[in-house]
Amino acid sequence: MTAARGFGSDNHAGVLPEVLAAIAAANEGHAESYGHDEGTAALEARFREVFGDAARTFLMFNGTGANVVALRALLRPWEGVVCAETAHLNTDEGGAPEALAGIKLLGVATSDGKLTPELVRPRLARFGDEHAVQPRVLSISQSTELGTVYTAGEMRALADLAHDEGLLIHVDGARLTNAAAALDVPLRALSTDVGIDALSFGGTKAGMLAGEAIVLLRPGAAVDAMPYLRKQSMQLASKMRFIAAQFDALLADELWRSAAGHANAMAARLGDGVRGLPGVTVTQSVQSNAVFAILPPGVARRLRERWFFYTWDEATGEVRWMCAWDTTETDVDAFVADVAAEVAAAA
Amino acid sequence: MTAARGFGSDNHAGVLPEVLAAIAAANEGHAESYGHDEGTAALEARFREVFGDAARTFLMFNGTGANVVALRALLRPWEGVVCAETAHLNTDEGGAPEALAGIKLLGVATSDGKLTPELVRPRLARFGDEHAVQPRVLSISQSTELGTVYTAGEMRALADLAHDEGLLIHVDGARLTNAAAALDVPLRALSTDVGIDALSFGGTKAGMLAGEAIVLLRPGAAVDAMPYLRKQSMQLASKMRFIAAQFDALLADELWRSAAGHANAMAARLGDGVRGLPGVTVTQSVQSNAVFAILPPGVARRLRERWFFYTWDEATGEVRWMCAWDTTETDVDAFVADVAAEVAAAA
Amino acid sequence: MTAARGFGSDNHAGVLPEVLAAIAAANEGHAESYGHDEGTAALEARFREVFGDAARTFLMFNGTGANVVALRALLRPWEGVVCAETAHLNTDEGGAPEALAGIKLLGVATSDGKLTPELVRPRLARFGDEHAVQPRVLSISQSTELGTVYTAGEMRALADLAHDEGLLIHVDGARLTNAAAALDVPLRALSTDVGIDALSFGGTKAGMLAGEAIVLLRPGAAVDAMPYLRKQSMQLASKMRFIAAQFDALLADELWRSAAGHANAMAARLGDGVRGLPGVTVTQSVQSNAVFAILPPGVARRLRERWFFYTWDEATGEVRWMCAWDTTETDVDAFVADVAAEVAAAA
Amino acid sequence: MTAARGFGSDNHAGVLPEVLAAIAAANEGHAESYGHDEGTAALEARFREVFGDAARTFLMFNGTGANVVALRALLRPWEGVVCAETAHLNTDEGGAPEALAGIKLLGVATSDGKLTPELVRPRLARFGDEHAVQPRVLSISQSTELGTVYTAGEMRALADLAHDEGLLIHVDGARLTNAAAALDVPLRALSTDVGIDALSFGGTKAGMLAGEAIVLLRPGAAVDAMPYLRKQSMQLASKMRFIAAQFDALLADELWRSAAGHANAMAARLGDGVRGLPGVTVTQSVQSNAVFAILPPGVARRLRERWFFYTWDEATGEVRWMCAWDTTETDVDAFVADVAAEVAAAA
Repeated sequence: MTAARGFGSDNHAGVLPEVLAAIAAANEGHAESYGHDEGTAALEARFREVFGDAARTFLMFNGTGANVVALRALLRPWEGVVCAETAHLNTDEGGAPEALAGIKLLGVATSDGKLTPELVRPRLARFGDEHAVQPRVLSISQSTELGTVYTAGEMRALADLAHDEGLLIHVDGARLTNAAAALDVPLRALSTDVGIDALSFGGTKAGMLAGEAIVLLRPGAAVDAMPYLRKQSMQLASKMRFIAAQFDALLADELWRSAAGHANAMAARLGDGVRGLPGVTVTQSVQSNAVFAILPPGVARRLRERWFFYTWDEATGEVRWMCAWDTTETDVDAFVADVAAEVAAAA
Repeated sequence: MTAARGFGSDNHAGVLPEVLAAIAAANEGHAESYGHDEGTAALEARFREVFGDAARTFLMFNGTGANVVALRALLRPWEGVVCAETAHLNTDEGGAPEALAGIKLLGVATSDGKLTPELVRPRLARFGDEHAVQPRVLSISQSTELGTVYTAGEMRALADLAHDEGLLIHVDGARLTNAAAALDVPLRALSTDVGIDALSFGGTKAGMLAGEAIVLLRPGAAVDAMPYLRKQSMQLASKMRFIAAQFDALLADELWRSAAGHANAMAARLGDGVRGLPGVTVTQSVQSNAVFAILPPGVARRLRERWFFYTWDEATGEVRWMCAWDTTETDVDAFVADVAAEVAAAA
Repeated sequence: MTAARGFGSDNHAGVLPEVLAAIAAANEGHAESYGHDEGTAALEARFREVFGDAARTFLMFNGTGANVVALRALLRPWEGVVCAETAHLNTDEGGAPEALAGIKLLGVATSDGKLTPELVRPRLARFGDEHAVQPRVLSISQSTELGTVYTAGEMRALADLAHDEGLLIHVDGARLTNAAAALDVPLRALSTDVGIDALSFGGTKAGMLAGEAIVLLRPGAAVDAMPYLRKQSMQLASKMRFIAAQFDALLADELWRSAAGHANAMAARLGDGVRGLPGVTVTQSVQSNAVFAILPPGVARRLRERWFFYTWDEATGEVRWMCAWDTTETDVDAFVADVAAEVAAAA
Repeated sequence: MTAARGFGSDNHAGVLPEVLAAIAAANEGHAESYGHDEGTAALEARFREVFGDAARTFLMFNGTGANVVALRALLRPWEGVVCAETAHLNTDEGGAPEALAGIKLLGVATSDGKLTPELVRPRLARFGDEHAVQPRVLSISQSTELGTVYTAGEMRALADLAHDEGLLIHVDGARLTNAAAALDVPLRALSTDVGIDALSFGGTKAGMLAGEAIVLLRPGAAVDAMPYLRKQSMQLASKMRFIAAQFDALLADELWRSAAGHANAMAARLGDGVRGLPGVTVTQSVQSNAVFAILPPGVARRLRERWFFYTWDEATGEVRWMCAWDTTETDVDAFVADVAAEVAAAA
């Protein structure tokens, strides 16, 4: 499969050429380590341009690190996180929130990965009861693990609920660029402008080699905690100039928007291509760069002889197809043709 | 200071050109993520060539991660680690062993950063006493935080002691390449061949952009634990092919040896240059790429107007100067001249 | 409310007279601390008589401690616990499993607090996937937090499922005596004989001053871990002879059975008394010493002017009434009369 | 050994008769659990009488629990505790501070278990450096693990140093009553009046069945944290009235003073009895209820045929003898006679 392109994950893709060039350009002379270099300072200033003057940015290695360190900074030991049961935090961090940070997640069942005030409100209970973990952070994913996207208004409603109830709101934005591209809005429209407290801003899936950022948008005590927590949480890069340079390239001229917008368009094309096929059900609205589908029996197995992709739900056989910044129309059309052929063969 | 070279740290240097080229070369098509790609598989095979057939390699983001994950894999919750009080683990991981992994470190005072059987033996006590953390891992640094180097025989003696007492032995090899270059031996002479159980093998200070490796040399149950612990410890890179490619370049034709050997030679030149200056005491034997010195009063402060470097001991004013793969003779000579000038001015 | 009796909790009751007498009798001379005394040894032998020769018993202070230490002994850091969402572990331990032991709980929704193989099986997924916490322990409560009781056959079916899938099974038996009294079977019929691996055996709610026991019924490596984990988990009593003496009294002549059987009978009487009242719904089958009910609007509030009891579900207004070893028929009848009067007044 | 009295530990003794009587007296009717009962409220008021109006008291099961929960309440995750290397926290809590609470201890070597400003000051370094655990609490033991006692002035000097440097000061007072009896001062003279922030006040060794108290003397945010941390740390007793009743008896008419004063007097008698024997060295000043000694070769071994006591230092053979509230002059004289006889036999 290597050196070809498939639909397994957006992190199967490589690095945007502009990002790779920025790494090479940063490889000049010595730079102070651990983020005390000029490049990182300049990048932090760029984040303030993007997210507003209050934004405080802390670069991390990966998404698990960004999510866990952000939550460590927002929580005391007896406080917990309300999130969707399907949140990456809850299902795919290997138990890092619990095992590394002692955090209890208070999962909420959803049909499409999106929380609503109605779904969240019943979990905001037992305040002041020492026997119960106290809800303190509401965490949502944008776009969600199911490829759906919150509107700015939906995010605002959740932020307002959180703040009204004394909680903070965190966004797992591993794919925030996909959401912003899908809604055709600036990044701050889905973060600063809707009252988000803390953001995990994803670089890797957007086309970087490695690197994520925690952006504190309404900073309080968490800002002082962050340097210590990042170091202690094993997320402090020594040669940080190279993470800074990647983000700088991604943010320059909104490179992220064209990359994510392209991935979204490819997913739309893929969804459109398979939606009408007999026996194929596209199970989630295709709003960003993911397509979820249930196929006729045996089809997924045969497709996997040529294509790598994940089963999302072992019980229903639902599969997930992801598009990336480098997915081509030719890739999509070839895959759709294969799906169509296998569906026909299975009929 | 950026774009110049100094003696602040070996991680102020950038990336070896061969390593940068390898990153670019790996940026082709899609590759399965999280280390399930062909490049990572090939790199694991190369590590077996270097460290022996039993070696099992797990790539990590950084040194703190490598050390903590390795120890998590070797320890049960009531077991602790005997290490030098000056070990990076004990002084510079921001409390990660304790806070993230619940590990108690049993520090041993040393004069030069090196443990000996005589120093270690008294800490191997209270076995079977439920009130006391049970010693289970002996961890040493090679080269040490003080720039000193264990001989292979010294390592073997410590490994034998550990094994005789029912302990395992771990090497923090963030600078193992400097030690191997200094002693002119293969990497396995300071690891596999002297009975080491687990190694944190450093790539970043050796000239990579980012990346370290845990190498289990005498694998047991820890091998099965490692994938889970790496993921949970927030050290699992999604686009791992790019870490693998860097290590591949570093190991090819022993690129690491020329890089580390050069850094060592520059430190020797620096040590020789300052050793005879009046009022200057070189406080540790210069065995790898570090020089430690005490300067006449006021000299360090004035040198810092042009050069960045760390104070090692606030009480004595001892300073640390590190050389890197890209340090030049011109750099060293210019620095030595400045030291000499300031010493003369201070006389 | 002090010195009266109510229906708030079975731990509002005091200490059985026989237990109090045993404490006084144990207060003679010196005894080695931390469980190395003759009384504790004798108690451990008695537990082997009750639960079988393989049983290994470790005395703890409280139920949270017994549950958390038992699970610590059974789990590695990346392994989790399947339990009912209503499990005390999940809702009322203040986040101890997560915060103190790093354990992820994989909650399963139930209607009556009881798990079944059908409910559990879908959670036994993603084995071998490093991104997902690995199910390793199935934990059930007997009797449950909703007052329901598993039959021995139901427990056996769950134990078989667990073992077939490579899991261990743990019973939170804070009220195991109520279950055994309800089913009129020996304690081992609900533990050893149905394949349970580890049991938290409750003493406090059964009539002790303080004290719980972890009983390992199919001991493996966990036995060696237990002394260290108990001490480290802050559950090692120094004057342990006094916990041992209490358990000894509780087990002597099955004192626990008469105490728990009486509590169960009082709950049955209470359930019968209110079941027919207009507007009152008894929401769970009354199988042990708890009655759950929904009352007409306003009734609970007015009852609370004279009686203390907990609201179980803020959304529905469901309340919980517990009976204890010292609840009398007079207490029950007085309470039922008050409920009836308030219900009539509300009509 | 049971039912006889020895010198193994002050927790080998049983329960003061007044304390036992108080337990029995508290066993009347129902009481709300988890400390929401009238008896606990009354006890909290009594603690305010003893320690001052600002004192906030939280009852715990044992000393490890009191120490760890107190420190959890005072520390953020990147902050550490400066303490003597011989502190119980550091040597005898089974790694609970690290494993359960993620706390790094910054041990300081002492000759007699007592810290001084001179010893502490060098550990107060690297403030603001994200790579180093930040010193935040200074913890001392009163009386110490070596039987020595701080004067009020010595405690005040340490408290002042702590506060001047931005730290808080905690006292492990598992044997505070012995210190207060030795100095013939009220409890608040060694806590509130010398600026202590948080106290672990020991009940068990003072003659209770089980129970310790965290007393916050200068409360801040820690007061709000405490209920959650106590519950989460598995230290919340359900039938707390019985711990409260024990403390009430211990504090009434300063019962603790006569009990601890007697134990101290017995240790003085023992120290005096053995000090002049040939070959016997009393290694620490006998200031409370402990005697440390080095004996001629073989003597300890033979004494152990009749008496149980601990070796304190395996390297030197130093032993520890503890006196308790119930140690008699006859016990001491019999033991001294045996020591004298064995010393003579060994000569």
